Amino acid sequence: MPKPVPTQQLINNLLRGDRLALARAISRVEDDAEEAARIVKAVFAHTGRAHLIGITGAPGTGKSTLVSALVESYRARGETVGVLAVDPTSPFSGGALLGDRVRMTRHSGDAGVFIRSMATRRGTGGLAKASADALLLLDAAGFDCVLVETVGAGQAEIEIARVADTVVVVEAPGLGDEVQAIKAGLLEIADIFAVNKADRKGAARTVAALEMMLETGGAAVRTVLHHGQRMEAGATASITEDEDGWSIPVLETIAVSGGGAAQLRDALERHRTWLDESGARVARESRRLNHMLQTLVQAEILARMEQALSPGLHREMVEKMQQRETDPYSAAADLVRKL
Amino acid sequence: MPKPVPTQQLINNLLRGDRLALARAISRVEDDAEEAARIVKAVFAHTGRAHLIGITGAPGTGKSTLVSALVESYRARGETVGVLAVDPTSPFSGGALLGDRVRMTRHSGDAGVFIRSMATRRGTGGLAKASADALLLLDAAGFDCVLVETVGAGQAEIEIARVADTVVVVEAPGLGDEVQAIKAGLLEIADIFAVNKADRKGAARTVAALEMMLETGGAAVRTVLHHGQRMEAGATASITEDEDGWSIPVLETIAVSGGGAAQLRDALERHRTWLDESGARVARESRRLNHMLQTLVQAEILARMEQALSPGLHREMVEKMQQRETDPYSAAADLVRKL
Repeated sequence: MPKPVPTQQLINNLLRGDRLALARAISRVEDDAEEAARIVKAVFAHTGRAHLIGITGAPGTGKSTLVSALVESYRARGETVGVLAVDPTSPFSGGALLGDRVRMTRHSGDAGVFIRSMATRRGTGGLAKASADALLLLDAAGFDCVLVETVGAGQAEIEIARVADTVVVVEAPGLGDEVQAIKAGLLEIADIFAVNKADRKGAARTVAALEMMLETGGAAVRTVLHHGQRMEAGATASITEDEDGWSIPVLETIAVSGGGAAQLRDALERHRTWLDESGARVARESRRLNHMLQTLVQAEILARMEQALSPGLHREMVEKMQQRETDPYSAAADLVRKL
Repeated sequence: MPKPVPTQQLINNLLRGDRLALARAISRVEDDAEEAARIVKAVFAHTGRAHLIGITGAPGTGKSTLVSALVESYRARGETVGVLAVDPTSPFSGGALLGDRVRMTRHSGDAGVFIRSMATRRGTGGLAKASADALLLLDAAGFDCVLVETVGAGQAEIEIARVADTVVVVEAPGLGDEVQAIKAGLLEIADIFAVNKADRKGAARTVAALEMMLETGGAAVRTVLHHGQRMEAGATASITEDEDGWSIPVLETIAVSGGGAAQLRDALERHRTWLDESGARVARESRRLNHMLQTLVQAEILARMEQALSPGLHREMVEKMQQRETDPYSAAADLVRKL
């Protein structure tokens, strides 16, 4: 068996942009909490340069294809791109991620593109932490632009995309009622809307509906949300200012043929310029780091809790609940007291 | 302003099956942690009788319509039904839930049906707790059958449906690649598959694909998963036994016309009988109570943590990170030390 590469060497190579070192570092960060701390500590000073772009949307909108088209568009201008495809829905979605990889093979010979899929059994908390770590590593490795794509459409997935500098929400015509419902959850976080599959029936109606929503409810919704975030985060007083001077565009794309990808890239560039000029970039980084800090503190405390809890005690409590000798709240209070 | 009903009176009325008391109790449980503890403690001894059914699936499969058809089918046999529709994707999905309500108005004059929607801004953790509490209240109020439907399709949504006695996963033909991907996450938790919109093109192929998956990979996947759960839970040694003697049916439904709803109800009844006879019901209740206990203990510990953390300190840490004077891991370790 070959000796594992020492961590310090891995870090040095990663900071030089070595792709193999980057891939290995991401694996170590996923697998080993101590290595994660060591690697992130070492590279953190080199982060903050990449444009972090979150891409999310309901299933069936063609996000992966759009990401691929966007990568091509960035490459055509000579910019380097890192992609993190996050799938929190399943530990068994090898098929889905393989599908991504197949679509992405056209970039496989290109040293300016790095693609990584991430799925985990460690629950959504573990994935939030691992993906935040991986984004820092991609940033430190020197990519001009880092895309994080989430496959699912739940709250946890939205959270992962939301911490980006710029959030693209992908829609598509004709996905039915429930997808419209999910849109409500995505409206609040979008900096840019891409209506994909724009050659399909109903695309114009989807665009019109989004534009109407943005004109009417959108502003109010965003203000409420940012207010909520500020309350929560306690460190982002400038977040409502984010929105001044940025009007959310609704773009049409046809990702399978690459149609609209250049326009989407241009909108992303405009947003990046706006982020820098308005000071919103600093506010968003603050929100991102704050979120990461909370995640790490919670993970540490929950890990200590699990160590302190004996499985026997836990089992005993469950049995007493099944006999209706105690109830969940009393049992939880008991356990917390014993910690 | 009318005086609020005293908690004890609310509890008494709820236990008599009073719907208004039930609705009020659920609201209090959602809004107030102390009231939640008080109410759940009081009603817990009266729980464990309802058949808890989780209904989940990718967006666009027509879950809500199927739930409505199923309610009608149960009512036709004189059984009472409580429905909890959980939407963790958005704090602003009034539209979606309203859509559900409109579809459900045909049951509105029926005292044997109770429908409640639940969406929250408190994050997925808060929703998991609130929905677990609400299910106990519905159970205690005496409904024969309690359906919990999740609108989204992320890990958090799956977790909420997964704790039921019986899990129905709804599929539909022609939802595209990404939906197929999500299916991978749902395969492991299904006791029954319903292929809805069975009159559409591709339905037979969807049924065949599911049946093939169940014949080949399904068993292995489920064993791995249950093994994983056992490791995690520490209290569910009998869980792999669950699967003995139950073969997962794949049913076709056309929810809009009610087609297949009676067959689905029959399959649910068969599963209920199997649960009782095999002892799996006890194992699943153990898993559910274990999950609830963990959720409550974590919530309590995180709440104490937030009280202990001063916002000023938090903000200071974020600023130091932005200056690259510290990194997220060092900052988190600092904060945990100070707790």
